[in-house]
Amino acid sequence: METILARKRMKEFELINRLTAGLPTLPSVLTGVGDDCAVLDLGLDDDCVLLKTDAVVEGVHFTAETPSRKAGRKALARTLSDIAAMAGRPHSALVTLGLPPQYDTARIEQIYEGMGALARQWNVAIVGGETTTNPGALLLSISLLGLVQKSRIVKRSGAQPGDVIMVTGELGGSLLGKHLDFEPRLIEARWLAEEFTIHAMIDLSDGLAGDLRHVLKASGVGAELLANNIPISKAARYNAADPSALADMGLPPATNPRPALEAALSDGEDYELLFTLPASQAVPLRDSWKLRFPELRLTCIGRITAHSGLHIRRGNTLQPLEGGGYEHFSS
Amino acid sequence: METILARKRMKEFELINRLTAGLPTLPSVLTGVGDDCAVLDLGLDDDCVLLKTDAVVEGVHFTAETPSRKAGRKALARTLSDIAAMAGRPHSALVTLGLPPQYDTARIEQIYEGMGALARQWNVAIVGGETTTNPGALLLSISLLGLVQKSRIVKRSGAQPGDVIMVTGELGGSLLGKHLDFEPRLIEARWLAEEFTIHAMIDLSDGLAGDLRHVLKASGVGAELLANNIPISKAARYNAADPSALADMGLPPATNPRPALEAALSDGEDYELLFTLPASQAVPLRDSWKLRFPELRLTCIGRITAHSGLHIRRGNTLQPLEGGGYEHFSS
Repeated sequence: METILARKRMKEFELINRLTAGLPTLPSVLTGVGDDCAVLDLGLDDDCVLLKTDAVVEGVHFTAETPSRKAGRKALARTLSDIAAMAGRPHSALVTLGLPPQYDTARIEQIYEGMGALARQWNVAIVGGETTTNPGALLLSISLLGLVQKSRIVKRSGAQPGDVIMVTGELGGSLLGKHLDFEPRLIEARWLAEEFTIHAMIDLSDGLAGDLRHVLKASGVGAELLANNIPISKAARYNAADPSALADMGLPPATNPRPALEAALSDGEDYELLFTLPASQAVPLRDSWKLRFPELRLTCIGRITAHSGLHIRRGNTLQPLEGGGYEHFSS
Repeated sequence: METILARKRMKEFELINRLTAGLPTLPSVLTGVGDDCAVLDLGLDDDCVLLKTDAVVEGVHFTAETPSRKAGRKALARTLSDIAAMAGRPHSALVTLGLPPQYDTARIEQIYEGMGALARQWNVAIVGGETTTNPGALLLSISLLGLVQKSRIVKRSGAQPGDVIMVTGELGGSLLGKHLDFEPRLIEARWLAEEFTIHAMIDLSDGLAGDLRHVLKASGVGAELLANNIPISKAARYNAADPSALADMGLPPATNPRPALEAALSDGEDYELLFTLPASQAVPLRDSWKLRFPELRLTCIGRITAHSGLHIRRGNTLQPLEGGGYEHFSS
């Protein structure tokens, strides 16, 4: 299943790359398709404009059983996470609701409530709300406009050989619950861009291996991960039938246990930040981070290499992490 | 059928109004939900930013038989028409594709081609392209960022008693073909806002009566239409079994003839401009228009009144145009 989804997702990337290859652009578009957000220089003194759109669909990104407020919250939170990945601040959102012929008005209102509460929390204006009929499923699409200081924009493409790779939080197993409750790392990302020399950043939505690969491709570099350093979430350990995680989470055993490290490398929807910065800044960053964000883990998980490809080190063994990072690593 | 669709659309408006009533806003949002576009003052010297999102769905806004390039063109053209309605200029677009589990890659490519060609024509950058699975139907959602001179913004809310009401083009029967080929009135709208005192403007997507009602409600005024002045399209006359239109269009007789005036008042998807301006400017405008846009009809269809309500005059008879302007007028 994971493999099928991963292949499907790869197919989507390939399709989008082909579709968007010949599309028109403008000199004021500093970054178009292919980063977390588009970056536009519209002539503001200090800021660029960020644009991002993202959709969630019932049966794909949430289910009929998902509490409606959480589904609405998630739709907006995903785009906020993309603004965070560019070290931006969100400003205003457009909302499109695709409604199946039969829908429950109360459910739609609750979706809006969940979205509205998160918008208020982050001072985001909701400036447009459209509805359309969508025969098959409830669809919720958000377009977000953000702003970012011109001098602080962090793209995917700036990773340099020798950089260390860091991630916030713990990875894997998000579908057990975190995907509906995650906090977009907006404050952390802006602090990072203001205080340190962040070369590249991305938010983890397709899984650590897949998203890191986006950074490597955009930057024209490779990377080496340290298997023992990957921060594994309790949910991923639960899915791996880790006895302590099972006890802590008070849930019945997972039906299809899979290795926790594999989950941390490949599960999607972590919505944590992955970024690279010069190795010389790693220790100062960790010290400052502990003071500024004592409750959020920050981990150095590897380094950027001049030679291309993604590798993972376990003890003395260095092995390539191929494909989607799914099937090959599980062997 | 028309009545059901109109009621459904009214229900959608009511739902959106309820959903968006309590949503957060910001001081820099000059216009939020409820106009053709949102208007943001982000601090540019001369311009405000316009934002608009709109979706088209297979089986609702186009069919499986619609040429794919035209479906893609239509999706973008609809949002361009909304930018026109604010006298703005389009800048950049985000594209979301909702793909059913089985889709034809060639069709998707053609959709993008149609969209891309129109984007090039209007110098619009396509800066983001996302895909998601959408179980029931192919969905194409466009979010458009535009710019408008601060001194030239035209909203729905500025209509004043005594204004004349004008429309571009000819109305009704768009689903016979125009809805796939219409030209967004971007050039005309900017020219109008630069040369005349346009008090209110909207693009006709829900039908003349319905869209005029949006203007009246936003402006707190009423209107009186002149039945004999409504510019009726050949397609609407064809649908009414007008012998000359039937002959001209070389099509078999319409299966469900309906009065042409009714069609011009109530059919959606005309994508023409409806606007109001002081009566004193009506003659100068018509003279200048004929020189500037000799091939596009411009018609004075009525006037704005201080007392609320929408009325239509036929000879000496003034009658209210109620409801969606659909069922009541056909009697």
